[in-house]
Amino acid sequence: MTDLRTTDLGVTDLIHRLRKGLPEAAVVEDPDVTASYRTDMAGFCESALPACVVFPETVEQVQHVMRTASELHVPVVPQGARTGLSGGANTVAGCVALSLVKMNRILELDPVNRIAVVEPGVINAELSRAAGRHGLSYPPDPSSWESCTVGGNIGTGAGGLCCVKYGVTAEYVLGLDVVLADGRLLRTGRRTAKGVAGYDLTRLFVGAEGTLGVVVGAVLALRPAPPPQLVLAAEFASTDEACRAVCAVMAAGHTPSLMELMDTTTVRAVNAMAQMGLPDSTAALLLVGFDGLDPASDLAAVGELCREAGATEVVPAADSGESELLLEARRLALPALDRLGTTMIDDVAVPRSRLGEMLAGVDRIGREFDLTIGVCAHAGDGNTHPVVVFDAKDEAETARARESFDAIMGLGLSLGGTITGEHGVGLLKKEWLARELGPVGLEVQRQLKGVFDPLGIMNPGKLF
Amino acid sequence: MTDLRTTDLGVTDLIHRLRKGLPEAAVVEDPDVTASYRTDMAGFCESALPACVVFPETVEQVQHVMRTASELHVPVVPQGARTGLSGGANTVAGCVALSLVKMNRILELDPVNRIAVVEPGVINAELSRAAGRHGLSYPPDPSSWESCTVGGNIGTGAGGLCCVKYGVTAEYVLGLDVVLADGRLLRTGRRTAKGVAGYDLTRLFVGAEGTLGVVVGAVLALRPAPPPQLVLAAEFASTDEACRAVCAVMAAGHTPSLMELMDTTTVRAVNAMAQMGLPDSTAALLLVGFDGLDPASDLAAVGELCREAGATEVVPAADSGESELLLEARRLALPALDRLGTTMIDDVAVPRSRLGEMLAGVDRIGREFDLTIGVCAHAGDGNTHPVVVFDAKDEAETARARESFDAIMGLGLSLGGTITGEHGVGLLKKEWLARELGPVGLEVQRQLKGVFDPLGIMNPGKLF
Repeated sequence: MTDLRTTDLGVTDLIHRLRKGLPEAAVVEDPDVTASYRTDMAGFCESALPACVVFPETVEQVQHVMRTASELHVPVVPQGARTGLSGGANTVAGCVALSLVKMNRILELDPVNRIAVVEPGVINAELSRAAGRHGLSYPPDPSSWESCTVGGNIGTGAGGLCCVKYGVTAEYVLGLDVVLADGRLLRTGRRTAKGVAGYDLTRLFVGAEGTLGVVVGAVLALRPAPPPQLVLAAEFASTDEACRAVCAVMAAGHTPSLMELMDTTTVRAVNAMAQMGLPDSTAALLLVGFDGLDPASDLAAVGELCREAGATEVVPAADSGESELLLEARRLALPALDRLGTTMIDDVAVPRSRLGEMLAGVDRIGREFDLTIGVCAHAGDGNTHPVVVFDAKDEAETARARESFDAIMGLGLSLGGTITGEHGVGLLKKEWLARELGPVGLEVQRQLKGVFDPLGIMNPGKLF
Repeated sequence: MTDLRTTDLGVTDLIHRLRKGLPEAAVVEDPDVTASYRTDMAGFCESALPACVVFPETVEQVQHVMRTASELHVPVVPQGARTGLSGGANTVAGCVALSLVKMNRILELDPVNRIAVVEPGVINAELSRAAGRHGLSYPPDPSSWESCTVGGNIGTGAGGLCCVKYGVTAEYVLGLDVVLADGRLLRTGRRTAKGVAGYDLTRLFVGAEGTLGVVVGAVLALRPAPPPQLVLAAEFASTDEACRAVCAVMAAGHTPSLMELMDTTTVRAVNAMAQMGLPDSTAALLLVGFDGLDPASDLAAVGELCREAGATEVVPAADSGESELLLEARRLALPALDRLGTTMIDDVAVPRSRLGEMLAGVDRIGREFDLTIGVCAHAGDGNTHPVVVFDAKDEAETARARESFDAIMGLGLSLGGTITGEHGVGLLKKEWLARELGPVGLEVQRQLKGVFDPLGIMNPGKLF
């Protein structure tokens, strides 16, 4: 690793050289503007002012940026819509913030081969809607889907509500165009449904948070659009019963299109925000959706399993309108918890059979640290989002929040889980990554990083 | 890379050292035995006598083998059931053939978390049957499924008939235990449904053909067992019409569980072998299966699309017994073509919209080289298996066969395809891998190899 400093003289030289291969307006150095590109949604993680923000519109322009950065040993932080939750897009001092938002074209949408070829700045929802117009769907649906970019989804390995049936972003990336740290263009993967020619470089870049290269194009797999989803809500007097229902549904061989859990803190927060009429006494609310040929009979079977597990109330939606209403409560979970204070959103996934222990442990941690922690979870995947609520102006409480956040990750690992199911490591969890990977894993990952980024200029300080 | 020679003295020392950490019977040096471990199913590719074959039964024993091989700079060729078709398991002179077939336990089978934890020597069909007893399925179904090992499937990235709906082996590998070249144990991935902690090393090992490390354990995802499959057969007077039917079915949003195509050469070979009563006039036979909730109505819709595309006959099975009979023709395709001479099985996948051009091109190549080339294809995936038939005793014809095989790969690449959809590169296609990857891709892949195997002892000469 070389010393990554940019002196004032260096900044002038950097900007001058960048402008040689970019349109005038594509290089922004006004600090009032560049300051607003310092962080993603993890503003509480460290960040520093970039030397400039660049907005390339072509692959060649990205190559020019990377060649220039390599020559000058200047760090580069690739950015999408900066909706990430782990600080993976936070800038470091004097870096080039490389925003891909202007490379936002859908280049192909092919119903026969069921693929889309896209630039990285395409908004997730725009791709979903474009696919829908061809009777297709692009399943990954992070909650920021109306604003996040496909490139950012690839960088973080984003998930969403759909994953229990349709999997995460990684499963939809067939091939990538990547500009490497030295400006070379690497094409990985394929446009075909199958292919095993050489090592799978495509998957190496998914979830790499821009630390190995800059994704400038992607071939994505699409699926036939599913039928409308029907949703059931079940209320439980304990989280343990709700988690037992989750296990019973999966053990019985069902394939729900959605299976979400909200704890009592979350239910009350949503009620307070939107008067949804959910009973405050609910210890856990489970939402289960089906989008198969006969969702009503699926809901009936799952409703019975919920009752057997101890559900106090089971409400199956009669149609997709009612289903939307039930889902609205889930969509409001994070905004509702946000109203209670500053929040830190965790993202621990455990084997679904350990979900009950996970939720009990988070409850214990909340009491231990005297903090409000609301949990919503992609329960079908065992992927929990404990949301630690704290007063950012209270230093002691902020410290406790951070400790509780760490305790939650430790709990997840002790249950055979992972510190991040879908949000990524970024800055927020990099100290924990080493624990999850172990010394051999960490060393191998560092060596891989070295292959792609010998100068250490690609999004430095993230992941490790 | 160091010089990889094993002198007679070296062999004695190697065997002596291996025996220090392995049971007596686990190290076999009798050349009558070791000779039979020289090749997988690609016996026509180069191979040479190994110094010994070892049969470890524990992870620690594999670590001992790798430490010993690293100390002595002796190459190691990992092997499963050696049913591979690309020479990926062929041995090099003086190497250790590392057979994983005795590590064949299913360690866990967990219906709630829908995972299996297995050793690499587990037979694919045994895992499938064990999963079936829990109402689950392990979809990857290469045609050798009754004898091939899960470890071999992981090494080659195996596919099968199921892939059009259920995907390839890679999509079912959640985590791996890998013994590295120097004997260290690396754990990759996770046991959870989701996880994005660090770079995806798991996928790097899938399809790596034992060139990066030795897979000694795997966490595999399972699915609920699907309902029985119903199959339809459609006959066409031209391959082009059959391929148009394939595109029409996929464009209409259907999700077949199977979509196979056999050309006229293959149909005639099957008829000659088993008197299946298929009309010799058939230019292409298309088999389409569905395993959803209402397969009969799926078959009716697809039958209509086939007729619109020009099918001369459409025969939907009435039940799963009739479906099995129709599938029998497909299962006999390779054995039937094998009866015509020595065969080389290609494995080119193209975008399914280019399937018609691919088949027309293969037909042209067969005429150009004056050879019989029968094609069966996983048509729904665009994955063709052109089978070149030749007389191995005729040198000129063998040379032409090899040339035609190359011409088929060139054709596939020119249509936006890949040289291998599911069989792997091994020795058979390594000269072609460079063409598909391009110079940047090849260089990066070589550097990755160097990270894991600095001495170049892991299955040398394969892939690159």
